[in-house]
Amino acid sequence: MRHRLVIVGGGFAGLSTAAGLRRADVDITLLDRRNFHLFQPLLYQVATGALSPANIASPLRAVLKSQKNCRVILGEVTGFDVPNRQVILGDEKIPFDSLVIAAGAGNNYFGKPQWEEHAPGLKTIEEATTIRRKVLTAFEIAEREPASARRIAAMTFVVVGGGATGVEMAGAIRELAAVTMRRDFRNIDPAHCRVILVEGSGRVLEMFAEKLSDKAERSLKKLGVEVWTSSKVVDIQADHVLITRNGQEHRIDALTTIWGAGVKASPLGKMIADATGATTDRAGRVIVQPDMSLPNQPDIYVIGDTASAQSGGKPVPGVAPAAIQEGKHVARLIKNKLAGKTEREPFHYWDKGSMATIGRNAAVMQSGWIKLSGRIAWFGWLFIHIMYLIQFSNRILVLFQWFWNYVTRNRAARLITGEEPKK
Amino acid sequence: MRHRLVIVGGGFAGLSTAAGLRRADVDITLLDRRNFHLFQPLLYQVATGALSPANIASPLRAVLKSQKNCRVILGEVTGFDVPNRQVILGDEKIPFDSLVIAAGAGNNYFGKPQWEEHAPGLKTIEEATTIRRKVLTAFEIAEREPASARRIAAMTFVVVGGGATGVEMAGAIRELAAVTMRRDFRNIDPAHCRVILVEGSGRVLEMFAEKLSDKAERSLKKLGVEVWTSSKVVDIQADHVLITRNGQEHRIDALTTIWGAGVKASPLGKMIADATGATTDRAGRVIVQPDMSLPNQPDIYVIGDTASAQSGGKPVPGVAPAAIQEGKHVARLIKNKLAGKTEREPFHYWDKGSMATIGRNAAVMQSGWIKLSGRIAWFGWLFIHIMYLIQFSNRILVLFQWFWNYVTRNRAARLITGEEPKK
Repeated sequence: MRHRLVIVGGGFAGLSTAAGLRRADVDITLLDRRNFHLFQPLLYQVATGALSPANIASPLRAVLKSQKNCRVILGEVTGFDVPNRQVILGDEKIPFDSLVIAAGAGNNYFGKPQWEEHAPGLKTIEEATTIRRKVLTAFEIAEREPASARRIAAMTFVVVGGGATGVEMAGAIRELAAVTMRRDFRNIDPAHCRVILVEGSGRVLEMFAEKLSDKAERSLKKLGVEVWTSSKVVDIQADHVLITRNGQEHRIDALTTIWGAGVKASPLGKMIADATGATTDRAGRVIVQPDMSLPNQPDIYVIGDTASAQSGGKPVPGVAPAAIQEGKHVARLIKNKLAGKTEREPFHYWDKGSMATIGRNAAVMQSGWIKLSGRIAWFGWLFIHIMYLIQFSNRILVLFQWFWNYVTRNRAARLITGEEPKK
Repeated sequence: MRHRLVIVGGGFAGLSTAAGLRRADVDITLLDRRNFHLFQPLLYQVATGALSPANIASPLRAVLKSQKNCRVILGEVTGFDVPNRQVILGDEKIPFDSLVIAAGAGNNYFGKPQWEEHAPGLKTIEEATTIRRKVLTAFEIAEREPASARRIAAMTFVVVGGGATGVEMAGAIRELAAVTMRRDFRNIDPAHCRVILVEGSGRVLEMFAEKLSDKAERSLKKLGVEVWTSSKVVDIQADHVLITRNGQEHRIDALTTIWGAGVKASPLGKMIADATGATTDRAGRVIVQPDMSLPNQPDIYVIGDTASAQSGGKPVPGVAPAAIQEGKHVARLIKNKLAGKTEREPFHYWDKGSMATIGRNAAVMQSGWIKLSGRIAWFGWLFIHIMYLIQFSNRILVLFQWFWNYVTRNRAARLITGEEPKK
């Protein structure tokens, strides 16, 4: 019988494992709760109406159509029977010889799950369209409210977390308001909206060189974003946020708060750790061996955002390139095993650099000693994202959509959907 | 003070009224519950994953951006105070001198509202994405089910109503299954799915010449659709439909049923009729005067799918061209009034013809004595729909998307979204 590989998760890590075994003599089963691969780095563009969900999501069956050794099953993993080598999906049991957990991560509210209701994050299409609805509805409320405290709250947006997600989101809201919707309203000037970016540490984009953090902060301010560093969110309610800054507590009346402050591994991480005796870190990520397998379980791997891995003594960051490299690495190990090789190389992360975009024409980018900012970084960002979308059949469409948005300064996907008005 | 016009509804009828008064000396307020204009004739393409919602919806504020005499208010009309000339939106009252009701229509379940839950129609974006989710999920269920009765039910689709909506939907499902998803599954062959189109009368596309109905029926059969004419739906449940045909009752086990059998005017039709003493027909449409105004209310008009109008002794059909012509007509009447003219022309409907598409390369089309079918009608359909999208800034994108789908035989928007799996 052929070697049976089960991959849990069709994100970057899971798909790159499958792709690495395209010509291998294995039977692959890819499990996912969703029927599509999602290009999460661009979710903020859905949240601000620049792209449609389908532009950044690709049906898994379409991606894997021609890979005959891989089947896709849509379903929710409910348990692992490690001794019997089975993944459990409700009543169904799927046997494996090798198992790869690549289940991704959700938002981390750091022990305040009640904040989720008022401050959606940017992890799923539904969250992105919820944010889109909230942001657009806020301006509609402001347009209808007579000048009042509520109008001010409607026109105030708090973005929590100064990482790439928060920076990109804050910039995109200001741009949506001040550029795209400039002439859309009659009672309000959307350009007067207030966007506050709250970051706990001393600077935004901490993973970048300080010089680039400064550039990013300047670009944000130029766009009209208020950057509150060394600030901490104390409470989030439907109509306000409490923030401590320099020892002082501020109450910000805001109808819209967006969460970009941290991620927490999928609960499947804890589940496989419990089933194998492995341990998880504070963010729920499974601590893996140098080769991405679990202790004493050489055929069970955890990769991508569900894993806590080290490379060269440093933690591997939770970014798409790391997930892709881990997937390729595990595919190689499985091929080696099938070929009868016993030595197992440790995973080595090749840091290709980081980038973040701050609205039209501004971005920061660093790779080794190369540090770029401004328009050239923005075009670099665009180019690399298009390259990454290469596995998507719709990359030409996205390029076209971006080009169109760029030329017309428009965002056609500004739809308030999902909560249908009562009939 | 300038003449105040309130338009309720941003569909084809409402927008064409506003557009007709672009340069007139009036203050226009356009009210809608949704923030976008929706190109309903293409909703079935969203329901089958060929287009994204944003491809066929355009934010009302973007459409009306440059029309300075028109403001947009997002909100739900809760009543009309006709004696005081006010439209009521909850606590808010909006005064008018002229009023245009163009609130569209919803699905008509003919006294069986409980069917709505199991058989969504094609009137809103949410309904279209619900159908998309149901159709795609049905194939996922079939893939996971061992060969069984439930697999057969999952792969059976019932489309109720043989008008343009039903014909287009039935054809699109077969095409999605047999062409787009041909190689997507490992346990099932989607081409084996069964699509039953149920029509009460003796032929599909009753509004067309008999010759074209025949052609349409043949095209549908060629695509693999079962056409059940002279058949009546007796009951709809989550997992089956009861249909009487030639006096016999058939039970069809099907997990997916789609409703395209009839429309019912917006409840605002009844509301304005009650407030003015006008009457409504069985479908809830307001019976209007020859000039589209209400009896004894020369400044209150009802147009589009909310109205029951006559032209040349025949009822005006509920199609986009009629709605657009009615909007233009009312705009002209209002301009005449402002210019001091008292004569009021009756509305005259110019029937430009009808068309329906049945999958790739097949369509039927008639206009006066011109009757076309097959590929030439399909290109005509494509051309005219692109022309109609002309008010949409994204028509080039849609053309591009269609071209792309046509060449690649792909439907990139095959996303199961909206109901997020439990975390």
